[in-house]
Amino acid sequence: MKVYIEPIGKLINEFSKLPGVGAKTAQRFAYKVINMSEEEAKAFADAILNAKKNVKYCKTCGNFSENDECDICRLRQAETICVVKEPKDVIAIEKLNEYNGVYHVLHGTISPLDGIGPDDIDIKGLLARIAKGGVKEVIMATNPDVEGEATAMYITNLIKPLGIKVTRIAHGIPVGTDLEYADEVSLARAFVDRKTI
Amino acid sequence: MKVYIEPIGKLINEFSKLPGVGAKTAQRFAYKVINMSEEEAKAFADAILNAKKNVKYCKTCGNFSENDECDICRLRQAETICVVKEPKDVIAIEKLNEYNGVYHVLHGTISPLDGIGPDDIDIKGLLARIAKGGVKEVIMATNPDVEGEATAMYITNLIKPLGIKVTRIAHGIPVGTDLEYADEVSLARAFVDRKTI
Repeated sequence: MKVYIEPIGKLINEFSKLPGVGAKTAQRFAYKVINMSEEEAKAFADAILNAKKNVKYCKTCGNFSENDECDICRLRQAETICVVKEPKDVIAIEKLNEYNGVYHVLHGTISPLDGIGPDDIDIKGLLARIAKGGVKEVIMATNPDVEGEATAMYITNLIKPLGIKVTRIAHGIPVGTDLEYADEVSLARAFVDRKTI
Repeated sequence: MKVYIEPIGKLINEFSKLPGVGAKTAQRFAYKVINMSEEEAKAFADAILNAKKNVKYCKTCGNFSENDECDICRLRQAETICVVKEPKDVIAIEKLNEYNGVYHVLHGTISPLDGIGPDDIDIKGLLARIAKGGVKEVIMATNPDVEGEATAMYITNLIKPLGIKVTRIAHGIPVGTDLEYADEVSLARAFVDRKTI
């Protein structure tokens, strides 16, 4: 005899596809759903279908959008473009309420080991936007890992000759860390990139 | 401007209703759904609706069931009844492949502080099953906490006078624990309930 009846087994299986969710957690989630009211369960299922159906990508910048053009592209001046790897990076930066420019989402970074070359990410779209004119600065905000650095360098080499200011977000020790516990690479970068106060 | 577009915000909100899921985790789950194929998202939503719609409770024992009577009640002899608090306890015990009797799910434990009295849990159903005859042993497998112990005692006092053997699952130190790290109550119980080898 199987331990779970079919509808519960199936639901546990679906939940365990979520990142970081193992069998025990998936089981807890399934029990929670079974204890929901019918309206709650329907709202949950609808939210999943809706997110899948209504979340598209902005034709201009590649960010998540409900329409062809995202609100950021529609409402902001495109003088400064911040280049990121994924749409979720846009959300992380938007949460700061510090940046007022537009974005360009590459949907990946150059990674020869994984067979991802410059043509597999949206560099062409970025160059087309720059070619239209009006762009004064491009901020490279890819992740500070090997692929992110390589992608930032690659794009910098393409657009610097066009006379556009290209900047890279600062690396260094995170705010609030003890020097003692900071990793060596970040600490070394913090020394190299030190600035006059 | 809001950070999340509406369909993503709604989905994050739904995911954060799951037990132990905070804002960051809910966000990761939502990104995962957005990156699913349409079939995958549909299968996920269907599993939720299906579990809610098709999971009922067995009319005899109160366990999860797709039909009026669960497979366990239908296929096994009702000589031994194991009394548990919730349907998920049945699953935990079934996973052991050790127990061959039937179950009775109380759907709660007596807890005066929370206003849950003996009439709010399914003790009546258990008594009705015993009254039908044929039951030789009732195993009290409620949790080893105050409410679980009190409920076990209450039910024991009701059915012992009927001449039925009532047992309680053993408490003691968990297998694999060092005595040094075992909690004091469990260690004390392990001494009281020691047995001849």
